[in-house]
Amino acid sequence: MQVNIKDIEAFDKPYRASFVNSLGGFKSLVLVGTEDATGQSNLAVFNSLFHIGASPALCGLVVRPDSVERHTLGNIMETGFYTINHVKEEFYKAAHQASARYPKSVSEFDATGLEKEYLNDFKAPFVKESHVKFSMEIAEKIDLKINGTILLIGKIQDVYFPEACLGQDGFLDLEKAGSITVSGLDSYHKTHKIARLSYAKVGEVPREIVEI
Amino acid sequence: MQVNIKDIEAFDKPYRASFVNSLGGFKSLVLVGTEDATGQSNLAVFNSLFHIGASPALCGLVVRPDSVERHTLGNIMETGFYTINHVKEEFYKAAHQASARYPKSVSEFDATGLEKEYLNDFKAPFVKESHVKFSMEIAEKIDLKINGTILLIGKIQDVYFPEACLGQDGFLDLEKAGSITVSGLDSYHKTHKIARLSYAKVGEVPREIVEI
Repeated sequence: MQVNIKDIEAFDKPYRASFVNSLGGFKSLVLVGTEDATGQSNLAVFNSLFHIGASPALCGLVVRPDSVERHTLGNIMETGFYTINHVKEEFYKAAHQASARYPKSVSEFDATGLEKEYLNDFKAPFVKESHVKFSMEIAEKIDLKINGTILLIGKIQDVYFPEACLGQDGFLDLEKAGSITVSGLDSYHKTHKIARLSYAKVGEVPREIVEI
Repeated sequence: MQVNIKDIEAFDKPYRASFVNSLGGFKSLVLVGTEDATGQSNLAVFNSLFHIGASPALCGLVVRPDSVERHTLGNIMETGFYTINHVKEEFYKAAHQASARYPKSVSEFDATGLEKEYLNDFKAPFVKESHVKFSMEIAEKIDLKINGTILLIGKIQDVYFPEACLGQDGFLDLEKAGSITVSGLDSYHKTHKIARLSYAKVGEVPREIVEI
């Protein structure tokens, strides 16, 4: 089946959002924890986290200024800090509920029942239930004029994860850690590992990497 | 277990790349098809595709200018066009092999055995084996000075997918279509759907969306 750009533009808004969000494939599912200068905390769910580089260790996040995520954006610009928390199956419904339009005076930690945790004196709250999480310092804010969204680039600070999930070569086994993935706007999925493959070289067939 | 930014900086390069790439969660896995002005084709595997917006329909891609992906970047800047092709389990090893450092004169289609397909007179090749794929026109190139990578923003043009995977509300069921996901640099995963959840509202518990 084929649809073109004119068809997409003619879809009604929720249909188009659902369709176009599906095209990007399976995505990272994380909760972003922040607080404002007065200590009012906020938690928001994102599916736009992406890797930018390992040295320095950088991640990007796309923020829509017209959504509830504006609390996240406001807090990050106010304090410079935020936390990224992977989502597990055990609390994906609470993570999803964090996307409801709560007023700024309501902390999504209270509204969803997820537990706030402060680690290593960092100025933003973590999600206690999350098994893979890290603190971030804002490095750059880029306005994407093409559609009015904002790209936040942050530097990874402290990383917390289960020791049993760290491989000999630095690979962190997210499936073992229980991190889940999302597709479209609202479809949640567990994963089932096919294999890890060795570094690809011209003229060689990639081998499966087996952890001992 | 905890590691901090100093630990990460002290990791050796491959270990650091593997570790930091794991933190971003499960990612979109796609093959990007391009050709240069003479018609020499190229295929590269990416795990940095991300959704930017639905109206206009935009996706972003992070490109590293010092890697084999420079052929992709060069071709896109030369012609303005590229294709995005989801990866299925049936050909994930060929997709992985496309990341080997082939010279520009070698098409990764030939090297990996994936079949080139031209659709609707579009000026870049698709992967025939791919079930969800779309054509893209470059809209913006942003140099990320923080680490020398490049963010390419493209407009979605024609989209091809199995009709049976399209839901009543515009949701495209990627799990049904057989799209897979990647974590870290080289770990490939199938998915297992937990549920879709209804739009989150304050004071309501999200319902599971069941397709009829």
